[in-house]
Amino acid sequence: MNITIIFYLLGWLLNTVAALMLLPFAVSIYYGESSGKYFLICSLVILTIGVLLTKKRPKNAKFYAKEGFVITALSWLLLSLIGCLPFYLSGEIPSFTNALFECISGFTTTGASILHDVEKMSRCMMFWRCFTQWIGGMGVLVFMLAVLPLTGGQDLYLMRAESPGPNVGKLVPKVQKTAYYLYAIYFALTVLEIICLLIAKMPLYDAVCTSFTTTSTGGFGVKNSSLGGYSPTIQYIVTIFLYLSGLNYNFFFFIWIKRFKDAFSMQEIRLYSVVFFCAVAVITADVIKTGYCLEESFRHAAFQVGSIMTTAGFSSADFDVWPSLSRSILVLLMFIGGCAGSTCGGIKVSRILIYLKTVKKEIAQLCHPRNVKVIKIDNKPLPHNVLRSANIFFIVYILIFSASTLLVSIDEFDLVTNFTAVASALGNIGPGLSLVGPTCNFDIYSAFSKYILMFDMLAGRLELFPMLVLLSPLTWKKQ
Amino acid sequence: MNITIIFYLLGWLLNTVAALMLLPFAVSIYYGESSGKYFLICSLVILTIGVLLTKKRPKNAKFYAKEGFVITALSWLLLSLIGCLPFYLSGEIPSFTNALFECISGFTTTGASILHDVEKMSRCMMFWRCFTQWIGGMGVLVFMLAVLPLTGGQDLYLMRAESPGPNVGKLVPKVQKTAYYLYAIYFALTVLEIICLLIAKMPLYDAVCTSFTTTSTGGFGVKNSSLGGYSPTIQYIVTIFLYLSGLNYNFFFFIWIKRFKDAFSMQEIRLYSVVFFCAVAVITADVIKTGYCLEESFRHAAFQVGSIMTTAGFSSADFDVWPSLSRSILVLLMFIGGCAGSTCGGIKVSRILIYLKTVKKEIAQLCHPRNVKVIKIDNKPLPHNVLRSANIFFIVYILIFSASTLLVSIDEFDLVTNFTAVASALGNIGPGLSLVGPTCNFDIYSAFSKYILMFDMLAGRLELFPMLVLLSPLTWKKQ
Repeated sequence: MNITIIFYLLGWLLNTVAALMLLPFAVSIYYGESSGKYFLICSLVILTIGVLLTKKRPKNAKFYAKEGFVITALSWLLLSLIGCLPFYLSGEIPSFTNALFECISGFTTTGASILHDVEKMSRCMMFWRCFTQWIGGMGVLVFMLAVLPLTGGQDLYLMRAESPGPNVGKLVPKVQKTAYYLYAIYFALTVLEIICLLIAKMPLYDAVCTSFTTTSTGGFGVKNSSLGGYSPTIQYIVTIFLYLSGLNYNFFFFIWIKRFKDAFSMQEIRLYSVVFFCAVAVITADVIKTGYCLEESFRHAAFQVGSIMTTAGFSSADFDVWPSLSRSILVLLMFIGGCAGSTCGGIKVSRILIYLKTVKKEIAQLCHPRNVKVIKIDNKPLPHNVLRSANIFFIVYILIFSASTLLVSIDEFDLVTNFTAVASALGNIGPGLSLVGPTCNFDIYSAFSKYILMFDMLAGRLELFPMLVLLSPLTWKKQ
Repeated sequence: MNITIIFYLLGWLLNTVAALMLLPFAVSIYYGESSGKYFLICSLVILTIGVLLTKKRPKNAKFYAKEGFVITALSWLLLSLIGCLPFYLSGEIPSFTNALFECISGFTTTGASILHDVEKMSRCMMFWRCFTQWIGGMGVLVFMLAVLPLTGGQDLYLMRAESPGPNVGKLVPKVQKTAYYLYAIYFALTVLEIICLLIAKMPLYDAVCTSFTTTSTGGFGVKNSSLGGYSPTIQYIVTIFLYLSGLNYNFFFFIWIKRFKDAFSMQEIRLYSVVFFCAVAVITADVIKTGYCLEESFRHAAFQVGSIMTTAGFSSADFDVWPSLSRSILVLLMFIGGCAGSTCGGIKVSRILIYLKTVKKEIAQLCHPRNVKVIKIDNKPLPHNVLRSANIFFIVYILIFSASTLLVSIDEFDLVTNFTAVASALGNIGPGLSLVGPTCNFDIYSAFSKYILMFDMLAGRLELFPMLVLLSPLTWKKQ
C-alpha cells in the first residue's frame, strides 16, 4: 500500500474543497448572511492542512487498483466529514449525525433529508447543500483529474473507482482529457437548465440550486414541497433535464463530435428510453384514477419517473398516496437507476442490459450446449471480467440491501418504510414510501440506522467495491 | 427435439399418477366418503391415456438437456392439471382456477391456499392435498426414476432438471440407485415423524398428513389454525423434523454409509445451521416483547424459523403481528430457503455460500489482481459453469420476482402483501405477510394474479430454467 500517495491525493482533495467552499461564502456576502463566515473559517483550516500534505510531491507516485479504491473511499469519507462542518458549526443542523447525514446525502446525490423545514435554512447553507450535490454528481476526483495534473498515467484507477458503470470507458485516450469533457458537458447541461428555468420565470437563486440538483440527479429542493409548488412549465423543464441527465454521457460526447449514428444506436440509451416511456405511460393511466386530469396525470407521472429513475428524488406530488401499481413501478425504478456513465445511482441500465442478455444466452446454451454465443453490446463483445463483475455487483447490491434492511428494522418501523429507505439510500434516490415518503423525512430513524443509511449512500454512489475494499482486512494485510 | 420420448415419458407420468390416486381413494373407502369416487374415475381415465402412450417404447430413446427441461416442465404442468381434477369435479373447490392453484401449491410444496375453511374438506380430499406435497417434495420424476427403468443412462438430465441445487450430484454413480436412496431417506424421515407424532398423541390421520407436509416442507395443515392448535410437544417435534428436512440429503446419506466426518464437515449444513440458530435467537429476543413467556417465545421463534427457512410455511402463531425486525428476518429467510438437495425451495443455502465466497474472492482479486484464487466448497474447487449458473440463477430469480410483483400489484393490494405473496410463491413457502399472512389466504387475488403466482410456484420448484426453456421460442425453433 502506497500510503504517501494516498496522503498526497487527500491533501489535494482538501485544497479543492477549500476552494469550492468560497462559492457559498460569496453567496453569504451577496445575501448579507453572517452564517457564511463558517465557510471561510473551514476553508482556511482545510487549506492549511491541504497545503502541508501537498507540499512535497511523493517520489513514488505509482499506485494500483487497490490504492485507487482506498483513495476514492477515503476521499468521500473525508469530503463528507469536512462538508458537514458548516451545517454543524453554524447550528443550522444542531446534531452532528444529522449534519453528516445531510452532507453525505448531498455529495452522494441521494437527496434524503433529515430537515423538517428546509425553507428555514439560510441562503448560503442551502446553496452549499445543493452545491454538494453538483460536486458529487460527476465526482470530486474526476473534477480533480480534470483540473490538476496529479499522477502520471494511473489516474484511470481513480476514475474507474469513482465513475458509475460496469465498463468505465474513456471518451478519449487520455484520462485527464476525458475528465475535462465530462465536466464540460455537465457544466453545459447545468447552464442550459438555468437559462430555461429563468425563461420560465423561476427566481435566479432557485434556478441555480435546482439546476445543480437536477443535472447531478441529486434531488435536494429549496422548498418544503420540493418542485410541487412551481408552475407546470418549470416541472416540465425539470423533467426534460432529468431525462437528459439520466443518459450516458458518451451520448452527449458522440453528439458533440457529430457521430450522431453512434449516439442514437447506443443500446443502453434505447433500453433506458423504452423503460422510461413505458413507465410514464402505465403510471399516467394508473394515477388518472385518483382524480387528476390527463395533463396532470402525464405531468406528474413523467416528473416522478424522471425523478426516481434518474435517482434524483424530487417530487411534484405525494406519490406515496398513488395506487399500488404506480408505487411498485417506482420502487422497481429505484433499483434500475439511470444509464452508466451518467450522474445516476442504482444498478444502472447497462447492467440490466447485460443481465437480460446473459439470461437469454444461458437459456440458449441450455437448449443447445454446443452453440456458445458471445454477449455483445453495441456490436462489441463484452470481456469475461466485465460480465463476471456485473453479476457479482448485482449479488453484492442485494446482499448489502438485505443486510441494511435487517439492521434498520431494529427501529421497528413498518416494512415498506425500511425497505424503501434502504433502497433509496443505496440507489442514491432520496425519498422512499410510507414514513420516508416525499412529504416526510429521515429524521425518524435512530442514529444507528442513520449511520447504516450513510454507509449505503456512500456504497451506492461508489458502486459498492471501494467501500468494501476499504473495510476488508485483506486490503490492510501486508503481503 | 425428440417428441416421441417426451410423449412416452409423459405417458409413464400418467400411469404413475393413476397409481398414486388410488391411495386417497382407499382413504375415502375407509372413511366412507362418496367424494372418493372421483379419484377412481380420474385414475382410470388417466391410466387409459397413459397405457396408450406407453404401449410402444420409442426406438430412439436418446434425449439431451433440452428435452430434459421440457419433459420436466411439461410433467409438472400435466401433473397439476390432472391433480386438480378431483378437487374440481367433486365441487369441493368449485372454481377451476382455485382448484389448480391449490394443486400447484400442493405439488410445488408451496402450501399457499385459497381455502377459507380447510376443515370443511372431506378427509380423502384433504389427504390428497397433503399427499400432493409429499409427491412433489422429492419430485415425481425422481420417483419414476427410482421405481421404473425408463431410459438408458440419460436420466441424469431429468434428475438435474427436477432436483434443487446448483450442482446436482449423484449419491452413487447410478442415477436410478441415487433416486432410490433419496426416496428411502425421504420415506424413513416421514415414517419416523409419524411415529413421533403418534407418541405425542396426535391422531393418526393428522399425524400422517402433517408428516407428509413436514418432510416435503410443503406446509399444508389439516386445521384452519395450521399447527397453532396442537400441543407444544407436537410443535417441537414438527420443528425438529422441519430442521432435518431442510438439510441436504447428502448429509443423511453420509450418515447412512457411516461417513460421519464427511457429514458433519459439510459447509452448507454448517451455514444452514448457523443462520437457523441465529435467526431463532434474535427472533426469540424480539418477540418476547410482545408478551410471550421465554418458552413460548423460543418455541414460536424456532417453529417459525424452521417453517419459513425450510419453505414449509406452517404457522404456530400469527407472525404477521410480530415486531418489524422479526418479520424482516422471516422475509429474508423466505429468499434464502433450505439446503440444496433437500425438499426446500428458495435460493438455497449452498448458493448463498457460493455468493459469499464469490464476493470475498472478488474483493481479494481487486486488492491483488495477480493472485487468482479458486472457489472451493468442502475442499473441492467449484467448476466455472457451476459458479456462472449460480450467479445467473440469482439474477433470474430477482428478475422473475420483480416482474411478478409488478404484475400482481395490478390488483391494488398493499406493497407488503404483493411483495411477500410473490416471495412466498417463488420460494414455495406458503403464507406471506399482511393480507396473505398466516391467518389469511390467497383467494383475495384476481384470477390473473393467481396464474402469475402459479407460474412462480412452478418456476420456483423447478429452479426457474425448465419453465423458461419451455417458454423460450429458441427451444422450439428447428435447428
